Amino acid sequence: MNKVNLQQKFSLFAEHWTPKIVGELNGQLVKLARLKGEFVWHKHDHEDEMFYVVEGILKMELRDQTILLHPNEFLIVPKGVEHKPVADEEVLVMLFEPASTLNTGDTEGELTQRELEIL
Amino acid sequence: MNKVNLQQKFSLFAEHWTPKIVGELNGQLVKLARLKGEFVWHKHDHEDEMFYVVEGILKMELRDQTILLHPNEFLIVPKGVEHKPVADEEVLVMLFEPASTLNTGDTEGELTQRELEIL
Repeated sequence: MNKVNLQQKFSLFAEHWTPKIVGELNGQLVKLARLKGEFVWHKHDHEDEMFYVVEGILKMELRDQTILLHPNEFLIVPKGVEHKPVADEEVLVMLFEPASTLNTGDTEGELTQRELEIL
Repeated sequence: MNKVNLQQKFSLFAEHWTPKIVGELNGQLVKLARLKGEFVWHKHDHEDEMFYVVEGILKMELRDQTILLHPNEFLIVPKGVEHKPVADEEVLVMLFEPASTLNTGDTEGELTQRELEIL
């Protein structure tokens, strides 16, 4: 059993939109990701997803509003809700979602990550 | 759908060892708690539990070691593992655990919280 230091884990990678697994509990994964630029519109039909901002400002676009997330703020996007994360400057986030969650949800494409690295 | 600001939520209560619910996803709860002093030794037979430190230094005593958690560090205590959180000074933590988790696990007593407040 080891503790996880977020800054130390973030120092291990620099690429964007490639979530890394840093923990598992009760079938849920804890992931870290660096975001920069615009992601794709997508939804997860069966999984709620939590975005916790560690550094930077995350713009979460929803179909009816845009929510700005600052450090130490989080948003839970319920299953079925379309969303598009946008990071004008680099954002560091911690994610919570079931092990089954695909990063691009129902919108598979170039950005889809199937095999996530475990840090 | 609303974002959650941790500092704002923490400003709503001052008492120790009384987790408040601030989010729910996939059957898991996100809770905030203020810790100060020594908790009781306990374990959760069926639930893994995650402690994420927001402020202060949390001393997690385990039967074979003690782990110090600083801000932006977390520890996942697997089901069945006895643990005792100790906070020499006040510590602010975010917890992730199934909705079914009782704060004192298998050691019910004065500190047990059955009805958690939703903030």
